[in-house]
Amino acid sequence: MTTPLSPTERSTPRREKERAASDRAELFSLLDSALICHLAVVVDGVPLALPTVYGVDPDGPDQGGTVYLHGSVASRSLVQGPEQEVSVTWTQVDGIVLARSGFNHSMNYRSAVLIGRPRVLTDAEERLHAFDLIVDHAAPGRTATLRRPTRKELAATTVLALPLHEASLKRRSGGPEDEEFDVEAGGVWAGVVPLRTVAGEPVTGADVDVDVVPEHVRERVRRLNG
Amino acid sequence: MTTPLSPTERSTPRREKERAASDRAELFSLLDSALICHLAVVVDGVPLALPTVYGVDPDGPDQGGTVYLHGSVASRSLVQGPEQEVSVTWTQVDGIVLARSGFNHSMNYRSAVLIGRPRVLTDAEERLHAFDLIVDHAAPGRTATLRRPTRKELAATTVLALPLHEASLKRRSGGPEDEEFDVEAGGVWAGVVPLRTVAGEPVTGADVDVDVVPEHVRERVRRLNG
Repeated sequence: MTTPLSPTERSTPRREKERAASDRAELFSLLDSALICHLAVVVDGVPLALPTVYGVDPDGPDQGGTVYLHGSVASRSLVQGPEQEVSVTWTQVDGIVLARSGFNHSMNYRSAVLIGRPRVLTDAEERLHAFDLIVDHAAPGRTATLRRPTRKELAATTVLALPLHEASLKRRSGGPEDEEFDVEAGGVWAGVVPLRTVAGEPVTGADVDVDVVPEHVRERVRRLNG
Repeated sequence: MTTPLSPTERSTPRREKERAASDRAELFSLLDSALICHLAVVVDGVPLALPTVYGVDPDGPDQGGTVYLHGSVASRSLVQGPEQEVSVTWTQVDGIVLARSGFNHSMNYRSAVLIGRPRVLTDAEERLHAFDLIVDHAAPGRTATLRRPTRKELAATTVLALPLHEASLKRRSGGPEDEEFDVEAGGVWAGVVPLRTVAGEPVTGADVDVDVVPEHVRERVRRLNG
């Protein structure tokens, strides 16, 4: 699996291996903290990376656990997905790495790629479970406060499942790694600009008759702002 | 072009069209503010979405301008890229949209998909230009403070160019769009949790002999933090 986020460094096989961590705990941590993923699927002969929300069930029925994606039944990517192997990528960018040379510039990041053949959910119970997981991923605790999906809503939605089995994880962290002759030459500032995603104050909808932001939404904000 | 970020809403063709803005200014604004993209490419028969950095030249030699991606000459994705049509996706997530029903949950986002057949750069001048654009995209003004790439560094790197021609843009903004019966029923808080990427205080590398963070790095932080 190649990940060109910091391509110039990846050309060194040792570092490649260091980054290709297989720790499943780290995979689940990334899937827990990310909000969207990119589904890579060939549509009409062209590979597309489509941003989408998702849900995770570590104890799901598939090998290694299950990732759920959903979309309109009219979506070409979801219709064509089950007929092929697809992949899903999660990427969190943690910093801009400014080196003493352009060549050694990089990004700090965590990224996971999952490959598999999607399973289209037909079982009503698993479909509802997947729906809830996807909503609760965006806002943990949310579904408990909502009405259940209607038959019409369920009928309008395709849900795909992917086993959390064939996954690879890569990341870069830490400061710039410069050539020795650049370090010796000196005179150039190098370092990292840390990046993170933060949540702002929740904005209540214009026509909403509840003016107190619920605790599960406050908790969502707190978790993001860590 | 389907984008399953808010799949349930996309099933309504009218909204689909409203979101499929073709405004090039908005495309360039997204490419300007994003830090990474995902290159979708078929590698060994599997579509992969690979996070990567990029540079943009609105006046580049390709139709509509040029996007530059680079990677190790050993990268399978970059080697296989020029032999096929690929796509590049930029996604900025702007908020979690919490509706009164799970079905109408969504994300606020801006996303662009660019499709094309990559051109491998062979011209030395354009390769250097692309290198500079990629570094200056991460940190505008950076290359002017650095030594030039060595022949060895250039030889280790493959650079791809894609015309900024066949692009589509989608976005969602604003509050939740709920069913009328959910609005009438009332009693459920709905709204948006705004999200944004922010930069922290730059961290100077451990072995760096310049302790003042340069102005172009400070400016990078300011631009990210708006």
